[in-house]
Amino acid sequence: MNHIPFKGIIAYPITPFDRNGKVDITLFRKLVERLVKSGSHGIAPLGSTGVLPYLTDEEKEAVTEATIDQVAGRVPTLVGVSNLTTERTIYHAQFAEKSGATAVMIIPMSYWKLTDEEIVKHYDAVASRISIPIMAYNNPATGGVDMSPALLKRLLKIPNVTMIKESTGDIQRMHYLRQELGEDVAFYNGSNPLALAAFSAGANGWCTAAPNLIPQQNLALYNAVLDNDLQTAQQIFYQQSDLLKFIVAKGLPRAIKAGLNLLGEEGGYLRSPLQTLTDAETAELKSILSATSISKQNALA
Amino acid sequence: MNHIPFKGIIAYPITPFDRNGKVDITLFRKLVERLVKSGSHGIAPLGSTGVLPYLTDEEKEAVTEATIDQVAGRVPTLVGVSNLTTERTIYHAQFAEKSGATAVMIIPMSYWKLTDEEIVKHYDAVASRISIPIMAYNNPATGGVDMSPALLKRLLKIPNVTMIKESTGDIQRMHYLRQELGEDVAFYNGSNPLALAAFSAGANGWCTAAPNLIPQQNLALYNAVLDNDLQTAQQIFYQQSDLLKFIVAKGLPRAIKAGLNLLGEEGGYLRSPLQTLTDAETAELKSILSATSISKQNALA
Amino acid sequence: MNHIPFKGIIAYPITPFDRNGKVDITLFRKLVERLVKSGSHGIAPLGSTGVLPYLTDEEKEAVTEATIDQVAGRVPTLVGVSNLTTERTIYHAQFAEKSGATAVMIIPMSYWKLTDEEIVKHYDAVASRISIPIMAYNNPATGGVDMSPALLKRLLKIPNVTMIKESTGDIQRMHYLRQELGEDVAFYNGSNPLALAAFSAGANGWCTAAPNLIPQQNLALYNAVLDNDLQTAQQIFYQQSDLLKFIVAKGLPRAIKAGLNLLGEEGGYLRSPLQTLTDAETAELKSILSATSISKQNALA
Amino acid sequence: MNHIPFKGIIAYPITPFDRNGKVDITLFRKLVERLVKSGSHGIAPLGSTGVLPYLTDEEKEAVTEATIDQVAGRVPTLVGVSNLTTERTIYHAQFAEKSGATAVMIIPMSYWKLTDEEIVKHYDAVASRISIPIMAYNNPATGGVDMSPALLKRLLKIPNVTMIKESTGDIQRMHYLRQELGEDVAFYNGSNPLALAAFSAGANGWCTAAPNLIPQQNLALYNAVLDNDLQTAQQIFYQQSDLLKFIVAKGLPRAIKAGLNLLGEEGGYLRSPLQTLTDAETAELKSILSATSISKQNALA
Repeated sequence: MNHIPFKGIIAYPITPFDRNGKVDITLFRKLVERLVKSGSHGIAPLGSTGVLPYLTDEEKEAVTEATIDQVAGRVPTLVGVSNLTTERTIYHAQFAEKSGATAVMIIPMSYWKLTDEEIVKHYDAVASRISIPIMAYNNPATGGVDMSPALLKRLLKIPNVTMIKESTGDIQRMHYLRQELGEDVAFYNGSNPLALAAFSAGANGWCTAAPNLIPQQNLALYNAVLDNDLQTAQQIFYQQSDLLKFIVAKGLPRAIKAGLNLLGEEGGYLRSPLQTLTDAETAELKSILSATSISKQNALA
Repeated sequence: MNHIPFKGIIAYPITPFDRNGKVDITLFRKLVERLVKSGSHGIAPLGSTGVLPYLTDEEKEAVTEATIDQVAGRVPTLVGVSNLTTERTIYHAQFAEKSGATAVMIIPMSYWKLTDEEIVKHYDAVASRISIPIMAYNNPATGGVDMSPALLKRLLKIPNVTMIKESTGDIQRMHYLRQELGEDVAFYNGSNPLALAAFSAGANGWCTAAPNLIPQQNLALYNAVLDNDLQTAQQIFYQQSDLLKFIVAKGLPRAIKAGLNLLGEEGGYLRSPLQTLTDAETAELKSILSATSISKQNALA
Repeated sequence: MNHIPFKGIIAYPITPFDRNGKVDITLFRKLVERLVKSGSHGIAPLGSTGVLPYLTDEEKEAVTEATIDQVAGRVPTLVGVSNLTTERTIYHAQFAEKSGATAVMIIPMSYWKLTDEEIVKHYDAVASRISIPIMAYNNPATGGVDMSPALLKRLLKIPNVTMIKESTGDIQRMHYLRQELGEDVAFYNGSNPLALAAFSAGANGWCTAAPNLIPQQNLALYNAVLDNDLQTAQQIFYQQSDLLKFIVAKGLPRAIKAGLNLLGEEGGYLRSPLQTLTDAETAELKSILSATSISKQNALA
Repeated sequence: MNHIPFKGIIAYPITPFDRNGKVDITLFRKLVERLVKSGSHGIAPLGSTGVLPYLTDEEKEAVTEATIDQVAGRVPTLVGVSNLTTERTIYHAQFAEKSGATAVMIIPMSYWKLTDEEIVKHYDAVASRISIPIMAYNNPATGGVDMSPALLKRLLKIPNVTMIKESTGDIQRMHYLRQELGEDVAFYNGSNPLALAAFSAGANGWCTAAPNLIPQQNLALYNAVLDNDLQTAQQIFYQQSDLLKFIVAKGLPRAIKAGLNLLGEEGGYLRSPLQTLTDAETAELKSILSATSISKQNALA
């Protein structure tokens, strides 16, 4: 087992629905294929982008199997298996492992705020039932729990919790992880607008839905960092930062679906209560996408 | 149809589990019976206290039917039917109506932050499919969305959205509702530590899990307000305020289960990741319960 | 010495400036006289309303002396003497005492966040140099430091710190004070929109600039509470709550000056950077004042 | 006039007091000399580090003149002239210009929250009365006002407001400035723990008290950025990040004074209510300073 199977750009597909509100697996496979083809270093279905919490168990299983089959080992896969209860989290983690996932991602979803003790027990219970690595995911804005850096450090003592995805938007959290845990800690940035700051701080990778729309620019940022070329990284980052801000502000599933449509791609339907962007929002996205695309051509020319 | 069927003390039962993690319907009925017998003016299963989001569809249905059968019309029932997707919210709302619920309570649960537009459409879609009244519930701490007073005012224009439950802990929200909507608006307090302030502000009722532990004192507070006796209301409130703070701080399901045990009652098991109170927390609760009980005897003597 | 010399409505005059930016002491005396005549139970110059931090030492001294001379013992006076440094706080507290102030009010103003230890030493140093009572004032929104209830409890152990003014807008802070310190604690509400909730919670008094505009209604609220008549208190509160919200939202010095002008009274000039209300804001205030006044006539008829 | 006279490391001296509470100008000059000698690219007296708001007008003037005389043109000077009132801000800005300051720094200090309009008028009034450039400083934690990026953009339209110092600790504010205002905007980082992220984002300089303690490492970070060497910048940053966090957490004047003492330098006395670090805090600082110093020797060897 590779304990830290991810680096670089880890791409999050949306989960598209058909006209009748069913998950559109055919379209989902197409969207996954686009992400692999465009050079993403990993594929992460059933994240926030993939509206995990809005899906039934059967839908989650179908998406998991479709991903692994479609990716076919070309890059590693990171399957979201978070659930409010420990029992269902174990169930989905085991399903992902059995289906061939490289690793699973778990955010401690909460309705009732969980104590640190409850969170540790939750991860521990899941970790002891699977053999593949776990990425612990901190995102108070969606999950409702903010895991302190100290708690994240505790989680990393569980043998197969080997990776942290940090999405608070506070760069100092990443500094703390690196400072406390040394150069060997594997932390990933999950906050799109922090992409440059996180790579500068030493993040191993960037978990992002942006490659659905601008894969070349996401990869170019990572490559500039690998080349130790800060000036180029900065320039490439500012070319895409408006888009990164927009997709976060509007919600990733809504914004990515709209962006795909603007690029002439199918994006399927959303599941209620999520609604499509307004016309004004779509126009704004069009203008941002087009500016991003022009600056890309100049930059990569 | 009575548009505003609730006033006074609306009691929230916990959902107890058995040793094997199944919902213990027999014990649940017993807990509901205690609440009715002790004088509660309404019974509200499947709230936050009832760990709604941690239950399967089948479990929710069993709890709904058990409540209505056990209460048997002695007081009105308010069934929680909140769900992340609109489709499942409609399903459970229809189930509750068919089963004989007096009204349903809906919090706009969110993973992705919902826009005001999405929230209005969500309530509208549910309201148009049932005939019983809806209590719109605002609780950013558990639901993840904070509905502004202006949005709540908008929701009240949907015909069968007739009641608001406010749990932000900010008394000014209630002032706004009353100020904007006049004396006819039905708003309910869902923040236990605000019980006195909310009744002073004109709240129609208090949605609370406290009657599982101290029903007489909850009722005495309401009665003092009905008697227009502020001094007595104040005195009775301060006798119970430590307990109200404690059960909120520790999480209602955990604290109520522990309190029931301290009172010599069965409270069942919790569902993971929720864990029982620590020994220190239980000792603190014991001491608070006992102080509350003594002051009650003095007050009511 | 009376340790707790205040109860009821403690009125805060603005500090008016003349056309040339000098404090207008003649007008200030007139404004103080209006407050005393209208029935206020105490007069508190050099508060936030009196723009204390914007004044020179000489101006503060002139305002202190004018207040005490004008009030002439008819009601007790509470002089604001807060300063960033301990040395200047002592200076102004001694000046107030020597001039005949009944008590002083002190907020721990901060530029650098103060530790609890620093705050205790600050109050202790001042308290040991004067003999009149001190009201400790907590208002993070203006002072920049939020004193926890536990810290306020500590301050009350300093012999002449005998009163707390709470302006966080969180009613639970007052519950805590009363719960922890018993019925003998003297706490005052400094958050206008919380007037009803604070009196319901047992506040001794209400520190407010509102009597510059609607003294009869402020007094009527207090009298209803004294009469143990919650329903009347609630009714009177809702008649004035729009005004209370407005003057806080716009800043007390700006809103009171505009309100005085609307009532046909002189309000003087503001000191830059503070600017007069915009025309739209003034129109809104006019409409609120007029609605408040009509409901008053009905209520008091 | 050079519109943007600063880049690199802009060092903030503390204002030391003598045993009797007077500003110790002789020691202050010595501390300024150390900062210049150690290679700082600018000297900024009367900042938050220099406890500006705790000083009398005479003290501010003495510190201003001492700085300019001591620096003697070797590097540019940036004098803090912020004041609650517009009139006093103008006075001190004019004094600084007359004394030979290269530029002035202004934070819109607030007691009453200022409107955007009031802030613009404040800067405008000062700017029109001096000819040297102004650095607008945003630091809600000390000044009490949070200027939005949009407001900062507005301020930059005032002719001699040419520089922004951002201290919110949110890297996205800097991204916004650069994105909105292009490569020509001069923005400076005032949040020590963000030093790496800010330089990565394109900050022109770093306004910091750290050179009082670790000047070589502050300069080395800047030089690595100039060399476009991200890996070295990252390594050097992590060597000093514990110290940067510590001095911010404890308050710059208190932490720098303690650090100077630990380095065998005089740091003078603090002005009450500010108190020296506790023994435990001093021991922690000693350990951090010593770890920082060892890693420096390794890094620079």
